[in-house]
Amino acid sequence: MQLGEVVGTLVSTRKDPKLVGLKFLVVKNLDAEMRALGGYSVAVDTVGAGLGDVVLHVAGSSARMTELTNDRPCDACIMAIVDAVEIDGRYTYEKARDASPTSP
Amino acid sequence: MQLGEVVGTLVSTRKDPKLVGLKFLVVKNLDAEMRALGGYSVAVDTVGAGLGDVVLHVAGSSARMTELTNDRPCDACIMAIVDAVEIDGRYTYEKARDASPTSP
Amino acid sequence: MQLGEVVGTLVSTRKDPKLVGLKFLVVKNLDAEMRALGGYSVAVDTVGAGLGDVVLHVAGSSARMTELTNDRPCDACIMAIVDAVEIDGRYTYEKARDASPTSP
Amino acid sequence: MQLGEVVGTLVSTRKDPKLVGLKFLVVKNLDAEMRALGGYSVAVDTVGAGLGDVVLHVAGSSARMTELTNDRPCDACIMAIVDAVEIDGRYTYEKARDASPTSP
Amino acid sequence: MQLGEVVGTLVSTRKDPKLVGLKFLVVKNLDAEMRALGGYSVAVDTVGAGLGDVVLHVAGSSARMTELTNDRPCDACIMAIVDAVEIDGRYTYEKARDASPTSP
Repeated sequence: MQLGEVVGTLVSTRKDPKLVGLKFLVVKNLDAEMRALGGYSVAVDTVGAGLGDVVLHVAGSSARMTELTNDRPCDACIMAIVDAVEIDGRYTYEKARDASPTSP
Repeated sequence: MQLGEVVGTLVSTRKDPKLVGLKFLVVKNLDAEMRALGGYSVAVDTVGAGLGDVVLHVAGSSARMTELTNDRPCDACIMAIVDAVEIDGRYTYEKARDASPTSP
Repeated sequence: MQLGEVVGTLVSTRKDPKLVGLKFLVVKNLDAEMRALGGYSVAVDTVGAGLGDVVLHVAGSSARMTELTNDRPCDACIMAIVDAVEIDGRYTYEKARDASPTSP
Repeated sequence: MQLGEVVGTLVSTRKDPKLVGLKFLVVKNLDAEMRALGGYSVAVDTVGAGLGDVVLHVAGSSARMTELTNDRPCDACIMAIVDAVEIDGRYTYEKARDASPTSP
Repeated sequence: MQLGEVVGTLVSTRKDPKLVGLKFLVVKNLDAEMRALGGYSVAVDTVGAGLGDVVLHVAGSSARMTELTNDRPCDACIMAIVDAVEIDGRYTYEKARDASPTSP
């Protein structure tokens, strides 16, 4: 599984019929220290990920194991939104808590 | 899925019988910023892509999930023509609109 | 199969339903000389690996061949804890023996 | 699919029973400009390729989709002999025509 | 398929039940000129390979196509011991003949 941050979208009208309805996101590749690895991936979203989310994506035939992507010509899908990554006892990533609706 | 621009074709007469009728295209590998990654892929076309099109291609067993490539010895196929890629709120690629047939 | 040392954990609440209950570990990639390869992998644990363990993980569709990961959108899993690696007649890694509970 | 030139052979007597009868060729990896990529592949021949032929080979599970390689422990096979590659309107490779047996 | 030389072993007691009985070997990666590629692979042995043998190993789902590795969480296995590699008419590798038991 690869870590990344959702930074964009890709739109395609003419595509394989099995891809209709899928959403393609552009993901900036990150390592577990949240350093950019210098490249991007294009992956199908299966969990409602949004811009800025740190996500986990899966490649190859395993990317077809979600209900949305089953049997489709798709080799990368986002299947988890990351809350936290901890290495050697320190957080390298921690998702900001939702602002309380009653906070000033 | 990988981005690329269709730049050429490959012709083969002597090949596995399951490949007869498939069209091989040469794709220049691009990243999501439309920068050349310094290499080419050879992929089977499944969507009628033409020279100059920016496309998405899929690798591995997922490349056999289209009707055309099902069960064939093919590990890369073009399954989408890209209309637009947007990163951090700006377009890194936007397909030119068809010139109106009546425009001067 | 790839060697690595378990160095951290990854937590995700919003994920594909098939991933519920799986534990994601962060693994520092090592070569057979136990040198860091300069990157990390995220893999599902299937053998109760803990921080500091040197493990073997498997990638791609083979990562779905354990009872825990079968048919899930997971492309990397830890399926063995390493006791020893020997190259050219010398140990490059040997797991420390458990301290005897009665040792001083 | 990867391009390459057949430059050699590999012989193995002791091997998995499912590999008996298959021919292993050594392929020099080329890009679509016919530049050496600096490495070799070992692939099973399924089309009668010979030394000097420019070929296309396929990797992973797709390499098992030919009649010869079906269900075998083989992850690369040559499944096409290339006649021509054209990029941006010029040929980067064109197979020499057979010399006519009656030509002077 | 990848070339390599068997240089060591890996021992694991705590592992997936499907891996019990398999032998893990450490393989130094070689190219077809028998030059070290600067890394190691860990692969399951299926042909009785020993230290010093030059072998061919197979990756991904194809590594599960031997009788020993079928359906197991294993993504690399040795499935051939190499006798000879010939490139451009010269041997880059030739296995030494067994010393005759009666030779002086």
